[in-house]
Amino acid sequence: MAMTLSDRIPIGELRKHVGEVVLVTGWAAAVRKQKAVQFVILREGFDRVQLVNDRGASPEIAEEIDALRPESVVLARGTVEENERVKLGGLEIRLEELVTLSLADELPIGKDAGLDARLDWRFLDLRSEPNQLMMRVQTIIEREFRNYCLGRGMVEINSPKLMASPSESRSELFEVKYFDRKAYLAQSPQFFKQMGIVGGLPGVFETGPVFRANPSFTSRHDTEFTSIDIEIPWVSSHEDVMRFEEQMLSRVLAAAQDEYGEPVERLFESEIVVPSTPFPRISHADAIAAVEDDGYTIPRADGDLDPEAERRLSRIVERTHGHQFVFVTDYPASVRPFYHMRQDDAPQLTKSFDLIWKGVEITTGAQREHRYDRLVAQAREKGHQLEELQFYLDFFRFGCPPHGGFGLGLTRLLMLLLSVANVREVTYLYRGPNRLAP
Amino acid sequence: MAMTLSDRIPIGELRKHVGEVVLVTGWAAAVRKQKAVQFVILREGFDRVQLVNDRGASPEIAEEIDALRPESVVLARGTVEENERVKLGGLEIRLEELVTLSLADELPIGKDAGLDARLDWRFLDLRSEPNQLMMRVQTIIEREFRNYCLGRGMVEINSPKLMASPSESRSELFEVKYFDRKAYLAQSPQFFKQMGIVGGLPGVFETGPVFRANPSFTSRHDTEFTSIDIEIPWVSSHEDVMRFEEQMLSRVLAAAQDEYGEPVERLFESEIVVPSTPFPRISHADAIAAVEDDGYTIPRADGDLDPEAERRLSRIVERTHGHQFVFVTDYPASVRPFYHMRQDDAPQLTKSFDLIWKGVEITTGAQREHRYDRLVAQAREKGHQLEELQFYLDFFRFGCPPHGGFGLGLTRLLMLLLSVANVREVTYLYRGPNRLAP
Repeated sequence: MAMTLSDRIPIGELRKHVGEVVLVTGWAAAVRKQKAVQFVILREGFDRVQLVNDRGASPEIAEEIDALRPESVVLARGTVEENERVKLGGLEIRLEELVTLSLADELPIGKDAGLDARLDWRFLDLRSEPNQLMMRVQTIIEREFRNYCLGRGMVEINSPKLMASPSESRSELFEVKYFDRKAYLAQSPQFFKQMGIVGGLPGVFETGPVFRANPSFTSRHDTEFTSIDIEIPWVSSHEDVMRFEEQMLSRVLAAAQDEYGEPVERLFESEIVVPSTPFPRISHADAIAAVEDDGYTIPRADGDLDPEAERRLSRIVERTHGHQFVFVTDYPASVRPFYHMRQDDAPQLTKSFDLIWKGVEITTGAQREHRYDRLVAQAREKGHQLEELQFYLDFFRFGCPPHGGFGLGLTRLLMLLLSVANVREVTYLYRGPNRLAP
Repeated sequence: MAMTLSDRIPIGELRKHVGEVVLVTGWAAAVRKQKAVQFVILREGFDRVQLVNDRGASPEIAEEIDALRPESVVLARGTVEENERVKLGGLEIRLEELVTLSLADELPIGKDAGLDARLDWRFLDLRSEPNQLMMRVQTIIEREFRNYCLGRGMVEINSPKLMASPSESRSELFEVKYFDRKAYLAQSPQFFKQMGIVGGLPGVFETGPVFRANPSFTSRHDTEFTSIDIEIPWVSSHEDVMRFEEQMLSRVLAAAQDEYGEPVERLFESEIVVPSTPFPRISHADAIAAVEDDGYTIPRADGDLDPEAERRLSRIVERTHGHQFVFVTDYPASVRPFYHMRQDDAPQLTKSFDLIWKGVEITTGAQREHRYDRLVAQAREKGHQLEELQFYLDFFRFGCPPHGGFGLGLTRLLMLLLSVANVREVTYLYRGPNRLAP
């Protein structure tokens, strides 16, 4: 019987094929060579099955298995048999044929490898059960985010990452050799998503890479990550933006909980709590007061919340409201970019917010200033070069609705969802000051 | 009565509110100031409604409208009235209040502006009915592509765009200043999506930017575009990859036809034909023979199909098979990258294909070589520096399934779907050698 890959049965579906001859494929997670019998544990994604060969019955297969090293990829044909003593679903496959499709070398890292070694060999690291799960949870986050936006009639954009001038600030900017001139990599799609609103679109969303030439090595920073972004028109204030975000996140977490709550708890010891809406809100001033009451003096010169203050604030809110999320609102203009809208009755404050989850800031959002004169004045006040910003300022000269939006880092979200300590663990391929490969 | 944006009614839903006082928002598409009566045509996305004001009834509103310039953004309150003589759905709104939220300057471009001027002011250009439609059709393409992949249990990846070494070739490569060293922008996610397969994922998909330092100015080229990419394991040959793509495209086009077939025909004079599957297939050798029979001698030194040959081939297939699509298969190894798998019985040929739609190549796909020794030999044969490729070659040393995939340019697809002549028209913000802004 000729074996062809199109006849293969996923290991997860073998239960339906007891007594049949099937074709299966996967990685040899373990190879046990005994005197009379050989066993191969075949792995495919989350699923595993035991393959059995009696040396006497098939010396050819015996030879093939003797040469097999762990993590080799094989194609196997055999009969699915029930066997209560087998842990993996009480099934095993009695081999009739085994072909090594890809023989593995000796593995360069062991199970106890450190993070850096694992990242060097990320494709081996990805094969672990937690990482298989992590990639699937990530897929759900992106899917549900987009479905939420699509359900509101919003339009997807793919904004350019190459720009003639800096998007927001000259710091943390990567420079590109662009033919005989210079270009820069976008630090966020901020200006371009606002352009969609000015362009008359009914709300826009994007998931795409952003680039930050940040030389720091913390567990939360990277030089490239996936940003989840939206911008919506006709908002009355930042409150409309917060309402959008809390509903979206509640949907995302409900889907993740529903589909992978059990394995996330088992493999990451992390419980996915579907948050109630509305999320608690606290003004920036009240947040600082609460943290100070808690006995912490913020060391930052600008008085803004630092990571320790964010952690403490989360604990306070968890205690007082029983909620993992908290919106910090009404940030002072002094610590916000020029395009955040000021409050009418308190122009030193902005219509902006941060979202903190489990002690970590995951979002900055705001209503944007859409009135040209005020925007120019605010840009000037912040010391920006107006010439570099002119392409952006022009957006507001020909009719722009009131609008707002937010950005959310995919890996920060995933890191907190899975309760892992480092964005490197939850990035498909992490990029940092010292890491550009594989 | 205080007007608040949260009470606004979309213009498309006014029919349900006849006789009621409503709040609407939008752009003043036209302002007509007569002696006794004033009219404003208010536009929001695809929808329009006429606002009416009797000067005598409200001098305040009259003053506001007199100061209004086209494309200003307004918020209006008034009663929805039926009026058979009004073209826009037989409805108009008798104004009780009008607030100019954003007064437009004199517009910098007119309706007859050329492409370059329109791209300079892309946010104004996007407000046109065809462009509003284009962005919505694009949204459907991405949605249906992803839903097709999700339905097959595939995992989404966000592969890095910053690389330590070139992805495929040194030509057309953008260089980035990366702290004290150099990085490059990925020309495709090719290697990284293959890494997902090696990492044990059950098929991967991605929509993300790719970068090509191509100095050419043709209607099909750009320096940055969105690539739609997949990679699937356990393929028997490139045939499995073609089957995936034809089913996916058929689904995408069916959804586009269903939701926007009528307006696409009206605004773009383009009929969306849902293609039957399987698509016609023709070998590269037969394609060349057919084009030569058609009286065309291909001028390329390497004998590969040039754009004119692709156009002729499409016409031939349309004539003989009544089909807009054709897969050209079995490309010679000489015109394909080193990682395309060779055919067992004809090693000068690859297990690869291009997909041509309406005379334009939209995809290159292949089964990949997953056997380390052959891959190294093929890389060497093509003259590659093995050191630069080592991170990629390593993927194949520790167990890799047979696999294949394809890439598809989003804007090329959209250009052909809408029958427009230039990718610049269907890119949110086009990037070319001379264009980096807005």
